[in-house]
Amino acid sequence: MTDHPHPLSAEEAQALAQATFDAMWPRDRTAQALEIRLISISPGRATLAMLVRPDMVNGHHLCHGGMIFTLADTAFAYSCNSYNKNTVASACHIDFLAPAREGETLQAESIEQSQSGRTGVYDITVRNQSGKTIALFRGKSYRIQGEVIAGLQQAEVPARTPL
Amino acid sequence: MTDHPHPLSAEEAQALAQATFDAMWPRDRTAQALEIRLISISPGRATLAMLVRPDMVNGHHLCHGGMIFTLADTAFAYSCNSYNKNTVASACHIDFLAPAREGETLQAESIEQSQSGRTGVYDITVRNQSGKTIALFRGKSYRIQGEVIAGLQQAEVPARTPL
Amino acid sequence: MTDHPHPLSAEEAQALAQATFDAMWPRDRTAQALEIRLISISPGRATLAMLVRPDMVNGHHLCHGGMIFTLADTAFAYSCNSYNKNTVASACHIDFLAPAREGETLQAESIEQSQSGRTGVYDITVRNQSGKTIALFRGKSYRIQGEVIAGLQQAEVPARTPL
Amino acid sequence: MTDHPHPLSAEEAQALAQATFDAMWPRDRTAQALEIRLISISPGRATLAMLVRPDMVNGHHLCHGGMIFTLADTAFAYSCNSYNKNTVASACHIDFLAPAREGETLQAESIEQSQSGRTGVYDITVRNQSGKTIALFRGKSYRIQGEVIAGLQQAEVPARTPL
Repeated sequence: MTDHPHPLSAEEAQALAQATFDAMWPRDRTAQALEIRLISISPGRATLAMLVRPDMVNGHHLCHGGMIFTLADTAFAYSCNSYNKNTVASACHIDFLAPAREGETLQAESIEQSQSGRTGVYDITVRNQSGKTIALFRGKSYRIQGEVIAGLQQAEVPARTPL
Repeated sequence: MTDHPHPLSAEEAQALAQATFDAMWPRDRTAQALEIRLISISPGRATLAMLVRPDMVNGHHLCHGGMIFTLADTAFAYSCNSYNKNTVASACHIDFLAPAREGETLQAESIEQSQSGRTGVYDITVRNQSGKTIALFRGKSYRIQGEVIAGLQQAEVPARTPL
Repeated sequence: MTDHPHPLSAEEAQALAQATFDAMWPRDRTAQALEIRLISISPGRATLAMLVRPDMVNGHHLCHGGMIFTLADTAFAYSCNSYNKNTVASACHIDFLAPAREGETLQAESIEQSQSGRTGVYDITVRNQSGKTIALFRGKSYRIQGEVIAGLQQAEVPARTPL
Repeated sequence: MTDHPHPLSAEEAQALAQATFDAMWPRDRTAQALEIRLISISPGRATLAMLVRPDMVNGHHLCHGGMIFTLADTAFAYSCNSYNKNTVASACHIDFLAPAREGETLQAESIEQSQSGRTGVYDITVRNQSGKTIALFRGKSYRIQGEVIAGLQQAEVPARTPL
């Protein structure tokens, strides 16, 4: 890592996003236990999918809100760490809009909305396989010290205004 | 269920809270998969515990935020269903204050803060075994049709003002 | 109002959105006290502007967070009442991203993200005149009884999935 | 200000909280425009009151949510600046539980729930004169550089666990 990295090209930034995913994924025992799958990763964005298994329902016979949150939070994590700067969740807000059921496949798409200083805001939408929105999640990220892959260049986080 | 139930005594309300827990728990496959344990249940309150297992960490070697959320959300669910009225989470907000690690035992205590109409607000505090606060969770509940245990009396939800 | 209204054309829905704004605006004494101005109104959307006056700063010499919130909340209100169905805020979450200062003109744009049953989710972005994002606000609406303009048709709220 | 202040006595901490209030209040033009009044201030706590004036209602003839938020946010500000360390709001969440009306006097009580590093969590309850809860507000604070009263000692913020 250099202190003043040259700006990465789009291709380099994409490769770095993929590399941070590849580095974090084997350590992410939760994502694997829940059989979450990667759909796509790019700088500031991540989309993941998860099948609602029989062991993911709650006492109302619906997908447990914690499982929906975990899928969204995982997409959030990979999108906000995609610049190779260690970043953690500071706070999250989730609105549950419709129930999900056993056997459905949920997809969570995380999109960076803003960056200012060490904090970022990401919007994650969880949909079922019919495209119906199950939950809207907004996460606040906080960049801590260190990089995901020590020694590799960090991408400059774009000073991004919301879409 | 009668339409205009007589007010329950404190003992009856406690027995009903325990009965709703007992009815929902075997169906709550998620709580069992995560080996969540009941510490206490009473009208409008629930405390649960969970050991952070090796399969509950994330790509930063810390307890996955989704697992912390799931524990808190589960305590929320049992506290807000304790009156035998079917109730679901409408929205949740979580502030992550300190990391939790593999091998720690987390405890989530849910306390009802307010009830008005069909909605309630519950505050859930997640602490580790040293009493350090790991996360603060605030959940909004929404009462839907039906009761947890069909045919059993529902408790009157107290028109409660925050503590 | 008819119980089963025919679907409104796009022109009728736009006229209804404008009419609900016109009906609510004179009663909205707060918006007038803060000299909030309408930029645009359409079904499920509203954009308003406000000059940060000298009496809108706080003890840190910055625009008071309550004034930023009030502008956003007002845009939220007009967007979620634009179907001529009485709708109130159930909960709001705001992330403050950058300070605003006296003399700046802020603009709040509210966009409907989802509708399900009586509740909706709206995203409001507050920017300054340079286009810099000052705050991100997410509001949950709840439809109560009655219409904004009694006797006028209500628009069908589209079962909308997030963008 | 010394870099390593001796711990303040309870009396010194209280005097410092009052002094920070006294310093910020004349600059807080919003609080004065809304005729907000101080009820009490102490380290990590503040209670304020506000009469709902005719110019504080919205298009539904109810107290504008932005005015309720502003009262709560102001109590939040004085409680989190009470240690003489410049602190701003990072994010706020508000649940609106019951309407408030013109002529009512609202009271907002802010209580510190947690402190970790530069961030704190505060719970603010807004009640009307009958003691009915109008809104529950949770604010996340972020400590920036500098002190409210330059040159005066800062109080050590207690490493506080939620009540």
